[in-house]
Amino acid sequence: MPRMILLRHGESVWNRDNRFTGWTDVDLSDAGVAEAQEAARRLAASEIAFDLCYTSVLTRAIRTLWIVMGEMDLRWLPVERSWRLNERHYGALQGLDKDEMREKVGKEQVHAWRRGYAVRPPALEDDDARHPGRDPRYRLVPDSRLPRCESLQDTVARVLPYWLERIEPALMQGRTPLIAAHGNSLRALVKYLDDIPDDDIPGLEIPTGVPLVYELDDGLRPRESYYLEG
Amino acid sequence: MPRMILLRHGESVWNRDNRFTGWTDVDLSDAGVAEAQEAARRLAASEIAFDLCYTSVLTRAIRTLWIVMGEMDLRWLPVERSWRLNERHYGALQGLDKDEMREKVGKEQVHAWRRGYAVRPPALEDDDARHPGRDPRYRLVPDSRLPRCESLQDTVARVLPYWLERIEPALMQGRTPLIAAHGNSLRALVKYLDDIPDDDIPGLEIPTGVPLVYELDDGLRPRESYYLEG
Repeated sequence: MPRMILLRHGESVWNRDNRFTGWTDVDLSDAGVAEAQEAARRLAASEIAFDLCYTSVLTRAIRTLWIVMGEMDLRWLPVERSWRLNERHYGALQGLDKDEMREKVGKEQVHAWRRGYAVRPPALEDDDARHPGRDPRYRLVPDSRLPRCESLQDTVARVLPYWLERIEPALMQGRTPLIAAHGNSLRALVKYLDDIPDDDIPGLEIPTGVPLVYELDDGLRPRESYYLEG
Repeated sequence: MPRMILLRHGESVWNRDNRFTGWTDVDLSDAGVAEAQEAARRLAASEIAFDLCYTSVLTRAIRTLWIVMGEMDLRWLPVERSWRLNERHYGALQGLDKDEMREKVGKEQVHAWRRGYAVRPPALEDDDARHPGRDPRYRLVPDSRLPRCESLQDTVARVLPYWLERIEPALMQGRTPLIAAHGNSLRALVKYLDDIPDDDIPGLEIPTGVPLVYELDDGLRPRESYYLEG
């Protein structure tokens, strides 16, 4: 039966520093590196032989994947990167301290930005240095597709075509993918697969660095999902 | 004008130990890691913005590429791996000490294996533990395509379809590839591109870890090639 593994990247330096990250390309913290190594140990101890890897174009997800591939001596596996697996774009909040923002605009507003399914943070201006159109990694993405901010709903809409067009066909061909991505791009996949209501999905926490296995039926609907615990 | 960069992996532990390596999946030595870091510095100092990476399915080439991508903060670039970029398959010689073999079978025989364009080393038996058919990284390669040993001529014949079918189209689309591979798979490419005679190509040494730039014309014939010196 088809199966796949979702893996949220290890802690990043901005997870650690409590800042809004989004598409900012921050690296793993030392704790994040250790989490990725631990993920590799759990994957090796399981008997799930993944044979294809997907990741975002952000360093923290790619490094998490590389650490897993390196520890498991699987550097030769194919890897496909896509901006569609990136973290949710946090717009003009990117780089700001979450607690400082709570003081400035109120707890309720920050909570709404973080946990309202359809709530968008303030958008980046077109001349903002953080605008993705200035980054060569997005040069082949049409400007009209590049977000200036996203609600989780927007992230779901952006992730879904990648699932449909790249991952589903690989599963149908009998491949077992590992998807190394981000809290919200993985939430988007889990919402779709498990048909989780809009109001519930923002509260679903996917822990960093813990492999989440999905066992699917022949129609690629989930039969069962579970974390590889230590 | 189209351009590309060839990069032979840094020294491996078996380069260092003077053993026939071929498809044996040995890692970089510490010196090899340092060579890859130096390659990254030279690439960063040049103004050649490669935007697509090709490599083999062997750890020493992939790690060389990862070190370059990491040092240059370019982990997000697409990478395509192929067995067709692997090192020449050294058959039953793989793992043997070059000097011991010289004592055993004579200098002339070892020289012929290493430097005769069409000379094949002894083939692996089908039940040999080193047979590539036993390695999951080749499970999608038809058995009839999997070498049991190769002359350099065989390596050229195996590399060329990849050049024609994957790299040439990318160059025609305006991409600038970096090809991180091996002494003999790169010799194969250089022989084809520069039309080097059969008798001369085995003696052409491509140094480890030194980026080799090819400037091409619109028909993808070489106009000029040069190493990025330190």
